Amino acid sequence: MSENVVWHEGTVSGEQRQKLTGSPGVTVWMTGLSGSGKSTIARELELTLFHRGRLSYVLDGDNVRHGLNGDLGFTRQDRTENVRRVGEVAKLLCDAGLVAIVPVISPYRDGRSDVRKSHTDGGFRFVEVFVDTPLEVCEERDPKGLYKLARAGEIEEFTGVSDPYEAPTDPDVHIETVDTTIQQGVELILEFLDRSEPLTS
Amino acid sequence: MSENVVWHEGTVSGEQRQKLTGSPGVTVWMTGLSGSGKSTIARELELTLFHRGRLSYVLDGDNVRHGLNGDLGFTRQDRTENVRRVGEVAKLLCDAGLVAIVPVISPYRDGRSDVRKSHTDGGFRFVEVFVDTPLEVCEERDPKGLYKLARAGEIEEFTGVSDPYEAPTDPDVHIETVDTTIQQGVELILEFLDRSEPLTS
Repeated sequence: MSENVVWHEGTVSGEQRQKLTGSPGVTVWMTGLSGSGKSTIARELELTLFHRGRLSYVLDGDNVRHGLNGDLGFTRQDRTENVRRVGEVAKLLCDAGLVAIVPVISPYRDGRSDVRKSHTDGGFRFVEVFVDTPLEVCEERDPKGLYKLARAGEIEEFTGVSDPYEAPTDPDVHIETVDTTIQQGVELILEFLDRSEPLTS
Repeated sequence: MSENVVWHEGTVSGEQRQKLTGSPGVTVWMTGLSGSGKSTIARELELTLFHRGRLSYVLDGDNVRHGLNGDLGFTRQDRTENVRRVGEVAKLLCDAGLVAIVPVISPYRDGRSDVRKSHTDGGFRFVEVFVDTPLEVCEERDPKGLYKLARAGEIEEFTGVSDPYEAPTDPDVHIETVDTTIQQGVELILEFLDRSEPLTS
């Protein structure tokens, strides 16, 4: 470009973006077993926020595995990398001003706390939601038929069956789905979010 | 959750999200040599869109390498993977309803056309912008001092010096920066975007 023209570096700050989205970005991280209801609650949360005029986006663990993380499998190392990448994308969405809703098994405590730290270090809000459904219930539901395959040994390293699930010890929001409707679960999350900072302008 | 309560799957469609953002998501992919002015034009485009009330986000190649792609180097394989991942994230931002502005060298024609295909297959708009600055000019500017290091052999596989840059043969927008101001470059992009679909509601 012409060297004799001085230009302002046109950087839009996160704060400025908030003028468009109404409130700061935040990551709502939903951890729990396969079949625990993470995605269902995530979608209902998304819909509720939409009706409030709040732009959000569901980073679904399954969907991300088709695209961004299509090169990863289910070994401990690959699971850790899966969670790391999803966490980084959630941070980008936060930075863009959205509510990043992330239903992803994320079985290891270390991986989740790394994602939290990475958010906190970057000045982003991270809310851990434990979608707490007993293994027996998940296995009985078995919406994708995966537990059956895992028990038959046709899926290796399946969380809860042949790979550990390290439950959160101190989640920000704890949803015990057996005694809770989907909408009640969503309300628990919204109450937590609204307590410190209203999600609508 | 209670099995006797039937819930609507609360999925918000891309079309619904457009009600919040004003128009469909689109990826503005800016390819060019290091020092060509990609990031500068990207930031100015972001600012212009912000003043129009349009939510956008700059996925800067350098920034992404600190986070999401922090595990990747500069071999041909790693560069290809870098571009693939950035493309997948851009698609997610599109899907969320944003203008994804992506200033990334993306030196290989195949990588760029893969990202375009991946967008098109997913129903997302992809605009390739060639930020065309001659190597001599980039090398003279050398804003980060990288060309000097590359010539001294201290950086290997540096695009334009020791690694090829495959220029677009038919970009959607062609900005020859030597004869163009930053704002003129931004205008060329906006004209292209507005031609088929206005970016503001």
